[in-house]
Amino acid sequence: MIAAYAPASVSNVACGFDVLGFALEAPGDVVSVAPADGPGVRSLIVRGDDGRLPTDPARNTAGAAVIALLERLETTRGVALTVHKGLPLASGVGSSAASAVAAVVAVNELFGRPASLEVLLECAMAGERAACGAAHPDNVAPALYGGFVLARAAAPPDIVRLPVPAHLACAVLHPHMEIETGAARALLGDAVPLGAAIKQWANLGGLVAGLFTADLGLIARSLVDHVVEPRRAALVPGFRAVQQAALGAGALGCSLSGSGPSIFALCDALPSAQRVGEAMRTVFAAESRALAADLWTCEVGREGARIITGLAASVPR
Amino acid sequence: MIAAYAPASVSNVACGFDVLGFALEAPGDVVSVAPADGPGVRSLIVRGDDGRLPTDPARNTAGAAVIALLERLETTRGVALTVHKGLPLASGVGSSAASAVAAVVAVNELFGRPASLEVLLECAMAGERAACGAAHPDNVAPALYGGFVLARAAAPPDIVRLPVPAHLACAVLHPHMEIETGAARALLGDAVPLGAAIKQWANLGGLVAGLFTADLGLIARSLVDHVVEPRRAALVPGFRAVQQAALGAGALGCSLSGSGPSIFALCDALPSAQRVGEAMRTVFAAESRALAADLWTCEVGREGARIITGLAASVPR
Repeated sequence: MIAAYAPASVSNVACGFDVLGFALEAPGDVVSVAPADGPGVRSLIVRGDDGRLPTDPARNTAGAAVIALLERLETTRGVALTVHKGLPLASGVGSSAASAVAAVVAVNELFGRPASLEVLLECAMAGERAACGAAHPDNVAPALYGGFVLARAAAPPDIVRLPVPAHLACAVLHPHMEIETGAARALLGDAVPLGAAIKQWANLGGLVAGLFTADLGLIARSLVDHVVEPRRAALVPGFRAVQQAALGAGALGCSLSGSGPSIFALCDALPSAQRVGEAMRTVFAAESRALAADLWTCEVGREGARIITGLAASVPR
Repeated sequence: MIAAYAPASVSNVACGFDVLGFALEAPGDVVSVAPADGPGVRSLIVRGDDGRLPTDPARNTAGAAVIALLERLETTRGVALTVHKGLPLASGVGSSAASAVAAVVAVNELFGRPASLEVLLECAMAGERAACGAAHPDNVAPALYGGFVLARAAAPPDIVRLPVPAHLACAVLHPHMEIETGAARALLGDAVPLGAAIKQWANLGGLVAGLFTADLGLIARSLVDHVVEPRRAALVPGFRAVQQAALGAGALGCSLSGSGPSIFALCDALPSAQRVGEAMRTVFAAESRALAADLWTCEVGREGARIITGLAASVPR
C-alpha cells in the first residue's frame, strides 16, 4: 500500500482571481492506494467526511482523477483507493483539489512513476471537472507543485511556478459554514468595471514582481482585491472585521480563500502568522457569535504533494 | 546649456493596459535648458513639431513639468527651455512623456541634481496632466527609468522596475496618422467581460514572471490583449495583417503601442526585430496603400533618460 499527501491551498490570493494560488504546509488530504484485481478503480472508501462524499469513483474527485490517469497510461491494472479527508468540504481551501492530487500522486507511485507532473496535473484537473463540474487549476497546481503558482491558462494548462520569499507564512481561519463555489461565482456577474480591472491586473503584476524580489512591502500593497471580494464579503459574517484585525496585527494582506468561507492572511513569518491568526479568531468569535471556526497557521507549503510512509503518524496536522 | 534625452516608450504592451511600459533606445526627444533671469520658465521654444505644440509653458508638457519641478524645489531661479521633438505627436509612443521627462532631467542637472528620480517622475506626470489633461505613468516611468516598468499605481506613483532579458528588442511601425488618446479611450467603454479580464491578468502575471525568468516562450504566450486591442484594432488600417506578419516573422508578440497608431513587436534580439519590422512595413504598405510609415528597430532601452553632450551629434536616431 502506498499513500500520498496533498495540502490545502489558497486560491485567488486577493488580486489573482482564478489564476493564482499557494499551498499550505497543512492541513491536507491523504489518499492510499493498493493494487486490485481487474481494471479501473475497483473500490473507493472515504473517511473523515461523515459519509457526505460520493463513493462512486466516477463521481468522486479522487476516483475520477485516477480514472483519468489510468486511461492516460492505457493500463488495464486496477486499484483500490482510500481517501482520508483532512480538509473540510466547501471550505475554500481546495479540498477537492487536494483529494484529486493525492490520489494521482499515490497511483503514479504505485506504478513506478510513469507519468510526469504535467500529466498528473491534467488528470487531477480532469477528475475535479468530472466530479465537481469545474476544475480549479489555481488549487490543483499549488496542491501538486507546492509554493506559489500562477495558472496562466487552464486548457491546456500553462502553470508558472513563482518563488516564495523566505519564511513567508499564512493564517487561515475556517468558519464552520459552507459556501458552494458555484453560488459564490454567480455573485460575480459577467462584467467588471474597467477601472477595477486595471487595478486588479496592476496588483497581480505587483504581487508577482514582489514574489520574485522578496519585496514584502510591494506584496502587501498588491494584496488587494478590487473585483471579487467586494461582491463576496457579505457571504462570511464578520469578514470585514476579521480582515481589519489581520491587517492591524501586521498581516501583509487578508482576503477570502478561494470562494470562502475561509479567510487567509499572508504574513512575513510564522510568529506573525500566529499572532495575526489569534487576532482573526478573537474578532471572528465576537462578530459571528454562534459560529465556530478552525485556525490553521503554517509557512507557505513549498513542497506540495508527496508520498508519505506510516500513514497515521505522518499526516501533517 | 545642458541637454537631456528621453526615449520613446511603448505602453500597455498587449496585456498591461494602463500599467505596463518599456523604453526604446531611440528615437526620443531632447530638451535643452539654460539659466534665465527671473523665476519660472522664462521662455520655451519647440523645434521639430511644425509649430503645432503650445509654447505657453503652462500648456506645454515640458514647460508644465518644469514648472512643477521649480515649485517642488521652492526655487526662484528661472530657466529657458528648448524642446527638440524627435517623436511624432499623437503617435502612441509616449511623445509628450518623453518631452516632460527630458525637461525635468535637464533642469535637475542644471541645478546640481537636487531632486530624486521619484520627484522627477511626479513632476513629469504633473506636467503631462497639466498640459494634456491626463498623465501616463506607463510612458513617463519607462522614459525616465528605462527598461520595463510596471506602474502599479499612479497617485502616489508606485513604480516597479522589471528586469529585461538579454538582447530583447523591438520593432515599431509608425503609420503617418494620429490617434488622440482620449478618443481611443472612449472606445473602451466602462466595463470588461469577466472572462476577458481574467485572461488579461493571467497574461500580465505571466509576462512579469517571464521577464524575471527570461522565459521568452512565456513572454510570447502572455503578450495577448483580450481587453483593449479588440476595441481599437479597427483604428489602424491593416493592423491585423501587420500583426500576423510580425508573428509569422518570429515576433514574440505584437499589438498597438499605447493607443496607437504605432504598432510594436517584441522580439528576442535585434536581428529578428529588423526582420520582423521589414515584414510589418511590407504588409502595411500593401494594406494601407497611401499611408506612409516609419519603422524603428532597436533593443529595449535599458538606460532611459540621460544627459547628453554635443546636442546635434548625440541625439540617437
